[in-house]
Amino acid sequence: MADKPLIFVTNDDGYFAKGINELVGVLSKFAKVIVMAPDQSRSGYSCAFTAKEPLQIKKLSEQNDVTVYSTTGTPTDCAKLAFFKLFSKEKPDLVISGINHGSNASVNAIYSGTVGAAIEGCVNQVPSIAFSLCEMDKDADFSYSLPWVEKIVRYVLANSLPLGVFLNVNFPSGELKGCKACRQADAYWCQEFDVIKDEDGNEAYALTGTFVNREPGVEGTDLWALDNGYASIVPILSNRTDMTYLNVLNDKLV
Amino acid sequence: MADKPLIFVTNDDGYFAKGINELVGVLSKFAKVIVMAPDQSRSGYSCAFTAKEPLQIKKLSEQNDVTVYSTTGTPTDCAKLAFFKLFSKEKPDLVISGINHGSNASVNAIYSGTVGAAIEGCVNQVPSIAFSLCEMDKDADFSYSLPWVEKIVRYVLANSLPLGVFLNVNFPSGELKGCKACRQADAYWCQEFDVIKDEDGNEAYALTGTFVNREPGVEGTDLWALDNGYASIVPILSNRTDMTYLNVLNDKLV
Repeated sequence: MADKPLIFVTNDDGYFAKGINELVGVLSKFAKVIVMAPDQSRSGYSCAFTAKEPLQIKKLSEQNDVTVYSTTGTPTDCAKLAFFKLFSKEKPDLVISGINHGSNASVNAIYSGTVGAAIEGCVNQVPSIAFSLCEMDKDADFSYSLPWVEKIVRYVLANSLPLGVFLNVNFPSGELKGCKACRQADAYWCQEFDVIKDEDGNEAYALTGTFVNREPGVEGTDLWALDNGYASIVPILSNRTDMTYLNVLNDKLV
Repeated sequence: MADKPLIFVTNDDGYFAKGINELVGVLSKFAKVIVMAPDQSRSGYSCAFTAKEPLQIKKLSEQNDVTVYSTTGTPTDCAKLAFFKLFSKEKPDLVISGINHGSNASVNAIYSGTVGAAIEGCVNQVPSIAFSLCEMDKDADFSYSLPWVEKIVRYVLANSLPLGVFLNVNFPSGELKGCKACRQADAYWCQEFDVIKDEDGNEAYALTGTFVNREPGVEGTDLWALDNGYASIVPILSNRTDMTYLNVLNDKLV
């Protein structure tokens, strides 16, 4: 690591979102920061990449220790482009994605472009963190989260993370009591569409939905932590093999 | 389960792809099959959903025990729409995604829309399987895989799967020696873009890349099985918390 750590930052809300700019504000106090983020909102893009058309990169600004690029791609594309174009010789010390506007706790981590970019960092063997605030508003108040962002980032810079593990951190809206290391709660979305009529009178289906926690009140889950005023830190594996059931299959099926 | 099991089928290559039609051909011998698949190729869409515009559904055919719909959405959208519209009262007995044209072994599972749809089935607590053939060609030969598809599907119908676990099955191109239950190999993609000039002379970045297996020759991995002429079956967890590192974090960070 050079004098100052080198941190790559991206998100799924776009380079212009408040959350990513608040994040960069914290990190630039002690790190060299390179941002490459989507030029439009790319929420819900998971680990999707763009195969159909070439991507474009635009350099937006460079001042002091912060350089900002936008791309026409997804969060995963942003991370892939950054590793290809900016970090082909020297990897960053960290990949940080966020701060997302809206929860990426529990099952939301599956769909999240913010988390998707952190997975891409992890696959590239760089310690990676996804940060999200459980507040969708574009003017959401990140002030309570920022000291914890700094604490968690400094911890990971000092201690690294095991290969193949990244952190998915969610902050409750408003003041927080502290921070809990958690497992992902079991939850799902139901009643997911509003049925509407399109211009031709045909039915169309607009995504909405109700979030259902299958483990309400269960301490140790990320949703419990958030419901009780704590930030949740979930260490997530990029390799998701179930080793227990693998042995069952070997006995019974193969 | 009714007399015949009810199987929901989707994919990411589109309803018209050879792989999904070969799959339906096998399943319809012993099951009632409902297909809801994208109306265009949606490879590389991971668990992405469509939040920006309403989705449309088109009923394409209904004969004997096979009904086929297309949607304007991603594979995850297809599964979500099917649970909302077709299976709101009675869940299917299985969700099957594929057979994909191209490998979804190892790290490819992260990006795959085929796998994304199986994750959605798993989150909805229906036993789910993603099938892929390591052969991109649109006229790929699925004939060697089909007896194994039937065997695996019948196994899962008879034995179910643990909640929160789905199967990611990949077939080698050509003849196969058998089938191995495996863990996901550690791999990544590098040198991921061709730099080209767009119409205005600006640089643009077209996805390509070299696949790197970090564990070449390691028996027990899915890439080893495929390289040695076996189909790989990887049981994958939808909840990816690393319980070991969780305890480290609780001791050191929180």
